[in-house]
Amino acid sequence: MIYADEEITLEWEPSTIPWLKLFTVEPYREMSDLPEPLRRRIFELLTVIEEEMRDYFHPHKINLASFGNYCPHVHWHIMARYENDSHFPEPMWGERRREGNLELPDFTAFERILRSRLSTLR
Amino acid sequence: MIYADEEITLEWEPSTIPWLKLFTVEPYREMSDLPEPLRRRIFELLTVIEEEMRDYFHPHKINLASFGNYCPHVHWHIMARYENDSHFPEPMWGERRREGNLELPDFTAFERILRSRLSTLR
Repeated sequence: MIYADEEITLEWEPSTIPWLKLFTVEPYREMSDLPEPLRRRIFELLTVIEEEMRDYFHPHKINLASFGNYCPHVHWHIMARYENDSHFPEPMWGERRREGNLELPDFTAFERILRSRLSTLR
Repeated sequence: MIYADEEITLEWEPSTIPWLKLFTVEPYREMSDLPEPLRRRIFELLTVIEEEMRDYFHPHKINLASFGNYCPHVHWHIMARYENDSHFPEPMWGERRREGNLELPDFTAFERILRSRLSTLR
């Protein structure tokens, strides 16, 4: 768990790419079910997390997705994608294209940066 | 084309499910590159489009995604998913599970509803 408060949690998805999952604590089904302040906060957090991932990991592209087909509890995937990652240019749910051997900076140091940024937003 | 103004366009993705694509007119690469008012507008539109799709199509789940790996120009996919659609519970980019024979209400009538709602938001 990277960050948690009374409204949201942020954790890693185990993967060969930097892949974060942002959940609401309350099990809302869809984004349009959220109270507006929380919905606005989630969208702001997506932007902040994207900015921090771009600064730290220098990905080729950011991918954002909210499905919830297996688990209908609002959660967002924020993924840093590279042209030589395992699935590019397919989404991470698509066809695997290659071994994904990426040289990436330390994930733990990124957690600290992100936790610090998220704490300033409360 | 369902709707267009100086900032955004909204169109159908040809599919067996109701699947819309919302583009920025300017070819921004990532959501965090958008000026804040436009970013806020895009997020508000995602919510409004989701609400209208839920009201009209009564999907089992809404799926939202922004990838841009093939075409790095910010665009969002808004998809109405059903338990018996071609790919459920996989994302539409994942493994096909079955023939998707859905009985859905008229798409053209939905365009009119959506166009009217989007026009009131300008």
